[in-house]
Amino acid sequence: MSDLEAIRVAAKAFREERDWEQFQDPKSVMLALVGEVGELAELLQWLPADRAKELIAEEPLHTRVSEELADVLVYLVGLAEQCGVDLGPEALAKIEKSALKHPVATSKGKAPRRV
Amino acid sequence: MSDLEAIRVAAKAFREERDWEQFQDPKSVMLALVGEVGELAELLQWLPADRAKELIAEEPLHTRVSEELADVLVYLVGLAEQCGVDLGPEALAKIEKSALKHPVATSKGKAPRRV
Amino acid sequence: MSDLEAIRVAAKAFREERDWEQFQDPKSVMLALVGEVGELAELLQWLPADRAKELIAEEPLHTRVSEELADVLVYLVGLAEQCGVDLGPEALAKIEKSALKHPVATSKGKAPRRV
Amino acid sequence: MSDLEAIRVAAKAFREERDWEQFQDPKSVMLALVGEVGELAELLQWLPADRAKELIAEEPLHTRVSEELADVLVYLVGLAEQCGVDLGPEALAKIEKSALKHPVATSKGKAPRRV
Repeated sequence: MSDLEAIRVAAKAFREERDWEQFQDPKSVMLALVGEVGELAELLQWLPADRAKELIAEEPLHTRVSEELADVLVYLVGLAEQCGVDLGPEALAKIEKSALKHPVATSKGKAPRRV
Repeated sequence: MSDLEAIRVAAKAFREERDWEQFQDPKSVMLALVGEVGELAELLQWLPADRAKELIAEEPLHTRVSEELADVLVYLVGLAEQCGVDLGPEALAKIEKSALKHPVATSKGKAPRRV
Repeated sequence: MSDLEAIRVAAKAFREERDWEQFQDPKSVMLALVGEVGELAELLQWLPADRAKELIAEEPLHTRVSEELADVLVYLVGLAEQCGVDLGPEALAKIEKSALKHPVATSKGKAPRRV
Repeated sequence: MSDLEAIRVAAKAFREERDWEQFQDPKSVMLALVGEVGELAELLQWLPADRAKELIAEEPLHTRVSEELADVLVYLVGLAEQCGVDLGPEALAKIEKSALKHPVATSKGKAPRRV
């Protein structure tokens, strides 16, 4: 069983055991995802940008970051399930689509510009 | 290879081919993740809550939602890699931790309260 | 003094008294804003959509929502200051721009569609 | 009239003219706010942290950032209105509360720690 499928199954069982499926709908799960993304952002916000990676490797920050990344993934998997989307294959397909949109020849070394 | 690992490897190759690793740091990838979460939220915001699931099943919305969910996952995997976190096992561990924190006996049927 | 200006001045004094200006840069303040948006989302996520307004009017939720809305505004004002943007006039200008983009004749009764 | 009140009144008139009040509820407006926060994050994500301020001062980025900051404020004002919260006074009150929570003597020069 793939990682994503194992997470989906475990999270579904967790909700069903507690009769929590009734509270699940796409917009609510989306807001829960936003909540966890916010907790993750809070852990990073004041880290000096050029030292962030090394600081995140230290405890207790490393454990807190792991927990919040995990929380975001669990809600993302649940939202994908709600929306009838097969996350794994879609992510790989998206990377391929991006590769076509940003050919190596014209993209090399230049960060994608938003404006 | 697990699906999360396949995504990690494909995204890394994509960045390395274009010499884009130089632009990667935890706070920047975090903001990119927030950008994709925002695009996903925009697709759901005006859907009537009680009809959201069925509306998301229809095209062209279903394809757009799949793409944005995929984008969020790709950045999440990249951020976990930046932070030295093994996403799959951490997510499963977090579900187990939540199960202990919310025993079935006391949780059944009652939505978790934030306040 | 306008209310946005009063907030800007008070927040700036708060930071200067504590010698916290050194930690301020647009990307960091953006992440702090995301953190507060997340805390706000967490307060709303499990509320039934059709009863959210009345539930938010009750305590203790009303006070918590007020606090998080306030936090978001304070960071937004700080970010605008960092970016050299006059928030009040820009917001009014944006509403006018939207009015031209969505003429009443063609918009009446139809929610803006994202896809 | 204060800035925030002028924005509130203009946004309300905009919605009422188009009969869009029917689509407004706290969770939907929250998601719209998240959408605009995401658009703002996307403009900043790849800027080098130590040059972000100067780069944001240049066009066309400065205009884009102004527009997105404005969008976030308009939705924040609308959400506060939905939730029966007087944003301006609450923001000033929050700054005062933070000042008591972080006394100058013990806070000076040290960034607030999240973990």
